[in-house]
Amino acid sequence: MGKNLTKRSDDYSKWYNELVIKADLAENSGVRGCMVIKPYGFAIWEKMQAGLDRMFKETGHENAYFPLFIPKSYLSKEASHVEGFAKECAVVTHYRLKNAEDGSGIVVDPEARLEEELIVRPTSETIIWDTYRKWIQSYRDLPLLINQWANVVRWEMRTRLFLRTAEFLWQEGHTAHETENEAIKEAEKIMHLYAEFVEEHMAVPVIKGIKTESERFAGAIETYCIEALMQDGKALQAGTSHFLGQNFAKAFDVKFATRDGKQEHVWATSWGVSTRLMGALVMTHSDDNGLVLPPKLAPIQVVIVPIYKGIEQLEAISEKVDPLVKELRNKGISVKFDNRDTHKPGFKFNEYELKGVPVRLAIGQRDMENGTYEVARRDTLEKETVPMDEVISKIEFLLEDIQKNIYQKALEFRTAHITKVDSYDEFKTVLEEKGGFVLAHWDGTLETEDRIKEETKATIRCIPIDAEAEVGNCMVTGKPSSKRVLFAKAY
Amino acid sequence: MGKNLTKRSDDYSKWYNELVIKADLAENSGVRGCMVIKPYGFAIWEKMQAGLDRMFKETGHENAYFPLFIPKSYLSKEASHVEGFAKECAVVTHYRLKNAEDGSGIVVDPEARLEEELIVRPTSETIIWDTYRKWIQSYRDLPLLINQWANVVRWEMRTRLFLRTAEFLWQEGHTAHETENEAIKEAEKIMHLYAEFVEEHMAVPVIKGIKTESERFAGAIETYCIEALMQDGKALQAGTSHFLGQNFAKAFDVKFATRDGKQEHVWATSWGVSTRLMGALVMTHSDDNGLVLPPKLAPIQVVIVPIYKGIEQLEAISEKVDPLVKELRNKGISVKFDNRDTHKPGFKFNEYELKGVPVRLAIGQRDMENGTYEVARRDTLEKETVPMDEVISKIEFLLEDIQKNIYQKALEFRTAHITKVDSYDEFKTVLEEKGGFVLAHWDGTLETEDRIKEETKATIRCIPIDAEAEVGNCMVTGKPSSKRVLFAKAY
Repeated sequence: MGKNLTKRSDDYSKWYNELVIKADLAENSGVRGCMVIKPYGFAIWEKMQAGLDRMFKETGHENAYFPLFIPKSYLSKEASHVEGFAKECAVVTHYRLKNAEDGSGIVVDPEARLEEELIVRPTSETIIWDTYRKWIQSYRDLPLLINQWANVVRWEMRTRLFLRTAEFLWQEGHTAHETENEAIKEAEKIMHLYAEFVEEHMAVPVIKGIKTESERFAGAIETYCIEALMQDGKALQAGTSHFLGQNFAKAFDVKFATRDGKQEHVWATSWGVSTRLMGALVMTHSDDNGLVLPPKLAPIQVVIVPIYKGIEQLEAISEKVDPLVKELRNKGISVKFDNRDTHKPGFKFNEYELKGVPVRLAIGQRDMENGTYEVARRDTLEKETVPMDEVISKIEFLLEDIQKNIYQKALEFRTAHITKVDSYDEFKTVLEEKGGFVLAHWDGTLETEDRIKEETKATIRCIPIDAEAEVGNCMVTGKPSSKRVLFAKAY
Repeated sequence: MGKNLTKRSDDYSKWYNELVIKADLAENSGVRGCMVIKPYGFAIWEKMQAGLDRMFKETGHENAYFPLFIPKSYLSKEASHVEGFAKECAVVTHYRLKNAEDGSGIVVDPEARLEEELIVRPTSETIIWDTYRKWIQSYRDLPLLINQWANVVRWEMRTRLFLRTAEFLWQEGHTAHETENEAIKEAEKIMHLYAEFVEEHMAVPVIKGIKTESERFAGAIETYCIEALMQDGKALQAGTSHFLGQNFAKAFDVKFATRDGKQEHVWATSWGVSTRLMGALVMTHSDDNGLVLPPKLAPIQVVIVPIYKGIEQLEAISEKVDPLVKELRNKGISVKFDNRDTHKPGFKFNEYELKGVPVRLAIGQRDMENGTYEVARRDTLEKETVPMDEVISKIEFLLEDIQKNIYQKALEFRTAHITKVDSYDEFKTVLEEKGGFVLAHWDGTLETEDRIKEETKATIRCIPIDAEAEVGNCMVTGKPSSKRVLFAKAY
C-alpha cells in the first residue's frame, strides 16, 4: 500500500508511534519530552474540546483562566499533593538572560534570581484554591463550577506522543460546594459525563470505577475514573474525577458562612481529561492501514477523489461534484474535494486511508456515464457503487453507521477481553497469554496490591461502580473479599 | 448608584482598574504580574477567540500547538530576536523539588539541574521555525499557514490587568512562503483582518500603519499594526503583523526546492493579538456607570428583571417571560432571566449596568396589565415602553443599533482627537492639553524620534498606510519629510 506502516501484530508499540507521525497527528520537538501537535491532530483535539466544552456548559460550568506559575510555597500547603508532584516539576528560578562576560553567548543572569521559585503548573488546585478564598464568603457563592483549558507540565522521564509527555493540554474542572454530599455528587456526575463523551464521541467503551488508595490523585479522598482497553490488551485511564473533601479548603483557609450562620470549610472536586485521549482514540480503532476515526471527530468526514485524464474530464467531474460539496456542507458535513493535479488517485486513496477519513467517494469516467459514485467506508474498507441521487442519504447513513460500528467492534473486543479468574496462577496466565482486563478478588490491602504489581506489572485499574457483591477470597492471600476488582497492565 | 466606581474624569487609570475588578473581568493573582481571568471576562475573550478563529480558518489558516519551552540556544539563533526578549524571560533551570535536609521545607533539588536552560516562550518563532525545517522541503509544501492559541510569558516589571501582564493569552500566526511578495501580502492581509475584527466585533475604530524601525518586532523586516485611541487620549496598539523576511529561515536553516530546482530560504510572517484587546474594549466604550459591551461580544446580550411582590406575581411574570426567553435563544440571542429572590430589582439593574449588558428588560405589575416591557439600552441609558408583541423586533433592532452606535461614538471621539500640527511647540501643547493622535512631519531619523519620546513621552504609533504624500518639514529639525506620521502617548 505504500504506507510502510509496521503491523500491529509485529510490534504494537512501533505501529502506534509510526502511525501518530505518518498520519500527521503529532511529532517530537527539539524540547525533551514536549510534542508538537500538527494541524491534522489538532483539528481532532479541537473537536474533542468543542464536544466536552458544550457538555460542561450544559451542566452549569463556566470557563476561567488561572496563572501558569505556582509559587513553591503554595504547592507545599497540601502535604500529599506536594509529595505527588514535587518529583517531576519544572522550576523557574530566574527572570532574565544576559550576554556572558567572557563572550561565550547568552547565559542566565545570576542577579535576576527570583525570591521564591515558581513551579510550572502540573495541575492547578493550589493556585485556584488560593483564589477561591477571595471568591467564597457565603453559601450564596456556592456552588462554584469552574473549568479551565490549559497546558500543564509534569517532568516525565520516559515519554510517548500523546500518552505521556512533559507538557500536555487538558481541561481541569475545580468546583466548590456547600456540602460533602453535593461535592461527591459532582465528582460522580463528571465521571458519567466523561464516560458519555468518550463512548458517544470517541466511540471508545469505558468501565467506570473508583481507584484504590494507592492510585488516587495526590490530595484526593476518592478518585473516580473511566478505563478503556486498547487493542494490545493494555488498559488506558481516560479521565479522572476527584472528590477532594476539605483538604484544599483547609490548606488555603477557604471558609463560608453556612445557612445557619456558622463558618465551615468548603467541599471540593477536581477533574480532568487531556490530550492523552488522542492516544486512546488512535489505539482503540486504527488498523494496519492507518487511522480509523469516528465520524463525530473526523476533521474531514468525506473526501471526494476524481479519476480523470486531462483537464476537460476534471472539469466535467467538478461540475458534478461542486454542487454535492455545497449541499454536504450545508448539512454540516465536512467534505474535501481533492482535485490536486500533482498526485495520482492511488496516492490519494492511500493518504486518506492513512488519515482515517470515514467516507471516500471516487468518480471516474464510467461513473460519469452511469451517474454513480464509488463509495468506500474506512472502517470495513467495503466499497459499493451508488447512484448520484442517493449519495447524500448514503453518506448520512454511513457517518452514523461507522460511528456505531466502530464502537460496537471495540465493545466486542473488550467483552472478549474481560476474564474472571479465581486463582493467582490463572491470573498470571491470562495476563501473559491473552491480556485485557482481569476480574479477581483482592483482600483490600496495599501490600497485596503492591505484590501483584511487582510480580505481574498489573495494577488495579478500578473497583467498578457496577460490580456485583460477590463473596470470595483474595486470589493471593485467600483473605475474604466482597467483590471483584478490575486488574490490567496499563499505559 | 451604589457602584462606588471612580469617575473617569477624576482618575482614568483608577477607574479602569476598579472597573476590571468590579465587573468581574479579571483580578491580580498571588503570582507577581500574573492575572486570573474570571468567568465573565473569560466569556468575552472566548467570543473574541471564536470570531478571530473563524476568520483565520476562512482565510486558509490551520491551528496547531508547539511546546511551551524554548531551549536557550534556540532563542539565541536570531540576533535581534534574543536581544528583544532575553531581558524579560522566565527561565526554567531545574526539574525537581525535594525535602530540605535541614527540614526547612521543600527546596529545589540541586542534582536536578537541566543541562540547558529552558525559556518559557515569550513568542514562538524560534521553536516553530526549528520545526518548519522538518516540514518544508519543496515549494509544494508552501504556503504553510499556521496559527496557535497559547499562553506566553514576558517578565514585565510594571503590570496592569489585561494591558501588561507577565503571562498573557494570545494567538500567534506563523506562516511560510515561496516568495517575498507573497509573505508581504500575507502580513498585510492579516493587518486588514485584525482591523476588520476589531472594528466590526469590538466596535473599536483603528488606524492601520507601519511601525518605524525602533518600534519593530525583534527580528522583523517590517511590522504592520493597528492602533486604537482610548478615552483618555492615549493610544493602544491592538495588533501587529510582521514580515520577517528570511531571518528565521536563515537562523534555522529552512530551505525549499524552488519551481526551477534551486534551494532557497523560505519567507516568513508572524502576527498576534492578545488578551490586551480586553483592555482596549473596556477603555474604548465604558463609562462612569460601568462596562459598555458591544452586543457581538457580550456574554449576556439581554437580561430580563422581574419586578414583583410575592411568589404569585413572580409566577405570573415567569409565564410571560419563559416563552420570550425560549424564542430569543432560538434566534441565537443570549438571554438571562434573573428571577433570583435574594436581590432587589435596583441591585440587579446596577449589576447589569456595571457588567455592560446591552439590553435590559424590566417587567412589573403595570407592564403585566398593559402588555408591555420596559426596555433599556446600556449605551445611551435610554428607556422606553414596548408592547410585548413588538419586543423581539425591538431587541433585534437594539442589538444592531448599539453595535453601530458605540462604534460611531468611538469614531467621532477619535476623529475629534486627531490633530495636524506643524510646529514642535504646537505638538507639545496638543499633547498636553488635548491628547489623542497628532499628525506631524518627521525627518525619518531615530535620533529625532528618540528626542521627541524623551521630551514628550509621545512615540510614533505608525506611518499610516493611507497617509497622503505631502511635502513638509520635520517639526523638530526642519529637514524635509514626504508625509505625516502618527504620534501619541501610548499604553
